[in-house]
Amino acid sequence: MSQRQERKIRVILVGGSGYSGLEAIRLIQRHPHAEMVAVFGPELELGPVERFHPAISKCFQLSQELFRLERVAELNADLAMLCVPHKVATAYVPVLRKAGLRVIDWSADYRLRDVAVYEKWYERHGDPAGLAEAVYGLPEYFAEAIRAANLVANPGCYPTCSALALAPLLKAGLIQPDDIVVNAISGISGAGRTPRLSLHFPERADNFEPYAVSSHRHMPEIEQTLSVILGKPVNVLFQPHLCPMDRGMLATIYAKPVGKVTESQLHDALASAYEKAPFVRVRKDILPATKYVIHTNFCDVAVRLAKGRVIVFGALDNLVKGASGQAVQNMNIMFGFEETTGLY
Amino acid sequence: MSQRQERKIRVILVGGSGYSGLEAIRLIQRHPHAEMVAVFGPELELGPVERFHPAISKCFQLSQELFRLERVAELNADLAMLCVPHKVATAYVPVLRKAGLRVIDWSADYRLRDVAVYEKWYERHGDPAGLAEAVYGLPEYFAEAIRAANLVANPGCYPTCSALALAPLLKAGLIQPDDIVVNAISGISGAGRTPRLSLHFPERADNFEPYAVSSHRHMPEIEQTLSVILGKPVNVLFQPHLCPMDRGMLATIYAKPVGKVTESQLHDALASAYEKAPFVRVRKDILPATKYVIHTNFCDVAVRLAKGRVIVFGALDNLVKGASGQAVQNMNIMFGFEETTGLY
Amino acid sequence: MSQRQERKIRVILVGGSGYSGLEAIRLIQRHPHAEMVAVFGPELELGPVERFHPAISKCFQLSQELFRLERVAELNADLAMLCVPHKVATAYVPVLRKAGLRVIDWSADYRLRDVAVYEKWYERHGDPAGLAEAVYGLPEYFAEAIRAANLVANPGCYPTCSALALAPLLKAGLIQPDDIVVNAISGISGAGRTPRLSLHFPERADNFEPYAVSSHRHMPEIEQTLSVILGKPVNVLFQPHLCPMDRGMLATIYAKPVGKVTESQLHDALASAYEKAPFVRVRKDILPATKYVIHTNFCDVAVRLAKGRVIVFGALDNLVKGASGQAVQNMNIMFGFEETTGLY
Amino acid sequence: MSQRQERKIRVILVGGSGYSGLEAIRLIQRHPHAEMVAVFGPELELGPVERFHPAISKCFQLSQELFRLERVAELNADLAMLCVPHKVATAYVPVLRKAGLRVIDWSADYRLRDVAVYEKWYERHGDPAGLAEAVYGLPEYFAEAIRAANLVANPGCYPTCSALALAPLLKAGLIQPDDIVVNAISGISGAGRTPRLSLHFPERADNFEPYAVSSHRHMPEIEQTLSVILGKPVNVLFQPHLCPMDRGMLATIYAKPVGKVTESQLHDALASAYEKAPFVRVRKDILPATKYVIHTNFCDVAVRLAKGRVIVFGALDNLVKGASGQAVQNMNIMFGFEETTGLY
Repeated sequence: MSQRQERKIRVILVGGSGYSGLEAIRLIQRHPHAEMVAVFGPELELGPVERFHPAISKCFQLSQELFRLERVAELNADLAMLCVPHKVATAYVPVLRKAGLRVIDWSADYRLRDVAVYEKWYERHGDPAGLAEAVYGLPEYFAEAIRAANLVANPGCYPTCSALALAPLLKAGLIQPDDIVVNAISGISGAGRTPRLSLHFPERADNFEPYAVSSHRHMPEIEQTLSVILGKPVNVLFQPHLCPMDRGMLATIYAKPVGKVTESQLHDALASAYEKAPFVRVRKDILPATKYVIHTNFCDVAVRLAKGRVIVFGALDNLVKGASGQAVQNMNIMFGFEETTGLY
Repeated sequence: MSQRQERKIRVILVGGSGYSGLEAIRLIQRHPHAEMVAVFGPELELGPVERFHPAISKCFQLSQELFRLERVAELNADLAMLCVPHKVATAYVPVLRKAGLRVIDWSADYRLRDVAVYEKWYERHGDPAGLAEAVYGLPEYFAEAIRAANLVANPGCYPTCSALALAPLLKAGLIQPDDIVVNAISGISGAGRTPRLSLHFPERADNFEPYAVSSHRHMPEIEQTLSVILGKPVNVLFQPHLCPMDRGMLATIYAKPVGKVTESQLHDALASAYEKAPFVRVRKDILPATKYVIHTNFCDVAVRLAKGRVIVFGALDNLVKGASGQAVQNMNIMFGFEETTGLY
Repeated sequence: MSQRQERKIRVILVGGSGYSGLEAIRLIQRHPHAEMVAVFGPELELGPVERFHPAISKCFQLSQELFRLERVAELNADLAMLCVPHKVATAYVPVLRKAGLRVIDWSADYRLRDVAVYEKWYERHGDPAGLAEAVYGLPEYFAEAIRAANLVANPGCYPTCSALALAPLLKAGLIQPDDIVVNAISGISGAGRTPRLSLHFPERADNFEPYAVSSHRHMPEIEQTLSVILGKPVNVLFQPHLCPMDRGMLATIYAKPVGKVTESQLHDALASAYEKAPFVRVRKDILPATKYVIHTNFCDVAVRLAKGRVIVFGALDNLVKGASGQAVQNMNIMFGFEETTGLY
Repeated sequence: MSQRQERKIRVILVGGSGYSGLEAIRLIQRHPHAEMVAVFGPELELGPVERFHPAISKCFQLSQELFRLERVAELNADLAMLCVPHKVATAYVPVLRKAGLRVIDWSADYRLRDVAVYEKWYERHGDPAGLAEAVYGLPEYFAEAIRAANLVANPGCYPTCSALALAPLLKAGLIQPDDIVVNAISGISGAGRTPRLSLHFPERADNFEPYAVSSHRHMPEIEQTLSVILGKPVNVLFQPHLCPMDRGMLATIYAKPVGKVTESQLHDALASAYEKAPFVRVRKDILPATKYVIHTNFCDVAVRLAKGRVIVFGALDNLVKGASGQAVQNMNIMFGFEETTGLY
């Protein structure tokens, strides 16, 4: 079917054994202009990637190998995707960039612009120089910078969902920036692949549970993102919950209107903000629900006026628009592909 | 209690084919001082109750029969339990009371004290006289009146969960009564047993979804209950969600503190309010979660101070403490049994 | 990115409101060489397809329209896909074929070669002439005929799973053809999108249940497929179960070995049969499980020798390899595309 | 039963931190003639039992304490319940019996009568003398011996389900004892409370998976039980599967009829065998399903004749009739209570 033989961009993945790594593999495999050329992982997790993810047997042949810079050099890769925990990312990023690769990092290491904020919520930062150059990969707001970036910090799932829902209303001056509650729920895959009692199947089945009151690390990320977009401080109380399902995320956000806004004005602010955004759907007659977004790169949003308050809803798949799909969207922008390539 | 051969109280059930009817049957069956003597239902749903609920085959033999007043008279029953939809309840209650039975009604028909409010949210009320005498069956606050009542309106699930979580904080003057958001989730059994597309298994699996924005009939019930307890108007924005599990309910409630309250003060207000309440557990180190309350009559509550806001959590089983368990608790109070009889 | 502008094949879909229709839409949309040009449906289900499936809003714009032959003629389509119930298919197929379209039919109408068998399990057949020309679309066994077919009967989910697991062992003469039990389970989406009590979420949650003992219409289809492949009668007892999950299917099949076969021989028979089959994975160290196949077009199989019996396992996604993915695989073969196009 | 102030039997539990321990606590708490007086556990799991099981806070006050024989002596207990892993049980049982307690053991240690068989499937047996005296606690078949026993081996979940379904048909000579396949599924709580990757929520969600082919330790237990009941060897191939739900078990059993049996004969054999068994329900019009038995002590069975084969279905709750409920049933028999006490 093909015509002139195009050169696909060459992607390496660091961290193929987790859930977002698997999603990245699946998405790159389906992408017409990119190919995965190597997967790297830690010493205790080497071998065929299909051993970690039997779902990709027969259609994905790579083995997870130990990271060696010389090996990376040989690969002639264009892009490194990092699906590793925070703190681990800073060990790879400077090296990869020095080797000439552009980088998209799934971890939190390059998301918080202010080192002090990072060090308050996480730990000592291992690459402040990189941090200064990183671009926050929320395409709906930072596409220009993403296009030119050689280090993209792929946003967290809750921050993506919250920021996409709130930003247009804040920018339009329709809601107050200092009285916002983000009540959110996530499927369990968001908690990663390491077994522990609280994620043991019988403990989570039939179990809806709040966690991390006032202490979730996505809270400062949400605030930073909205503050940057708005150009002034935004204050958010973020409360997450675990929902007994594999994937999917929904935020129900409560805000106060500024003056006498109408529901139409609120809806229109969302609708016009995302008219050209291929992955944000502004719902009117139905409300966002996880069923409609899982296994897609869409974030669905909707807004209602209720008893003098504004309720904004946002929904996405924590592993796609909340992680690996958004990374591919960023890749598309970075490499000049149509934004929806491989994602529709 | 007694040693002498006691006479069990005789209970009739109207409406045995739904989920709360089943739960009522199970609870009465396990109760040492009560027995179910008849089950009544509409013309299209007659026959052995086990046909609707194969779970009770071999341990429950009654058939659902057509309601006839003469039949009721013969039964020499003490109490009628009504698991019927709103509007239907008002057709039975006056008749049953006239026949000398005390009544516990699961529907919304006798919950809203103000006929005007009822008629705004539901329809024309069929028994205003009954309404005037009905007692709202939230035992933790109205035990005295319940004891003497001959008509108890069994509270809704969301209102029970919300009111138990909020009331002590309002009474102690620790939170503002006019700036409260109740964000809640429910298992699907709360939506009843009538099939429809939105409750079709594949539509609800993996699907977390908000509904009834600003329009859920439990909102005025929550406000009324809290206003009565506090003695002045309480304003609540209530937002429910469907969670893909069979049963369980959790409310995450956001309020504003009054002045400089501490988390200890908030916790102590809950703890002292429920010290003697056998079915409310005030959690401190862990948060309420549906897993810990399903198939029990407990409502778990906890409170946190977070970024200048008060978050109160409440969890219960929508079919037990949110419906049939609470009805049995009311029955225990009405008939002078230990409050926990048949429920621990 | 593209070079010479290729002409994509033009596909019409009849029946876009169900789950397999949705899956077909998603797969065609992702396909590089096919495009959907119209969706037809019954009078009561017209309008934007996204109204039935909010998951495809913004990336799929077609409306479901009433079927009119003139409209079909205008579309200049190459292929019709029919996601309609049995009996309905025979109303469309002859007309579509006469209009020059090739047809892939999801229903059971063209699967059973023998009209008498069809009429025993279903009803009077509406298009015996079509039936005589239809090709059974199991690509692993009938690719040659599929390539040339203009009417392909897309196999049932249980038959695909069962036949792929059993055929190589029967062909190799390793198991007895007259003593086979297929015990299978399916996710609930397999039962379709029409709500009814038995598929109501609370009825199915936590509920694993056998059904259709000795009476499932896929039983004669399994037998026919295996008999055709083997060239002599195969007798199968098929017992399905509903499993409380949205999608996924697993068959555990019990057979008797012929003589003294070893587990290696059994495994090798599967392995060599499917060496070049891109969508069948023969597992050795792990067993098939639904998690590894859902949202893919793979069928995983494995075989064990246990206490003198042969156990064969097969797993697939009932909506993909068991329905719409297999249809796209058939389309790829019919139109000369690489078999995996749009499916890996 | 009695009117005079009765003395409740005093029960100690060894092993309160797992799921069957929790179920035992709940059942004893609801039992009118028994009370739990102490809970013992290993050094690393001491403290309030509610810490392991927040579900019982406020209604169960005991702490898990280190096992000390002097402490047991002081308690003046009648019965010890052991919810500990196999191998651990043999460390406690001889000591407890010597101290004068009757014992019900949940583990496999005293189930297999033949030490050689035990040592083939498990390990070296630590108490062959105890084994020789143990009674297999399947009340429907061994009530007489249970009544007199001072050591009861509580049966496994799969063996209970399988034996209750098969025994009457074998005894009536209606099925062949050497050609039986037990295909069974279980909810995940059956795998215990220790977290591991294969039981991690995201790994099990949407995942139906076979395991332990030809190697599950319940296979020899099923064979022994049926062989003892029948009085001659019974050969069973047992194949279990994990089903993505918390609790519930269903066996679909395939057997060959002896001669020309009818479905009525088969059904009647079950019906007459269990006419007086309060916890076995022989279904006719509906089939056993997990929904109808979870949270009850029932085992539902049904039989069908299908294509010359006999299919027997059995369903129960793995934590109730498959574990703790059956133990309480055994306790009722051992101590002369009505068999259903505390269980209906």
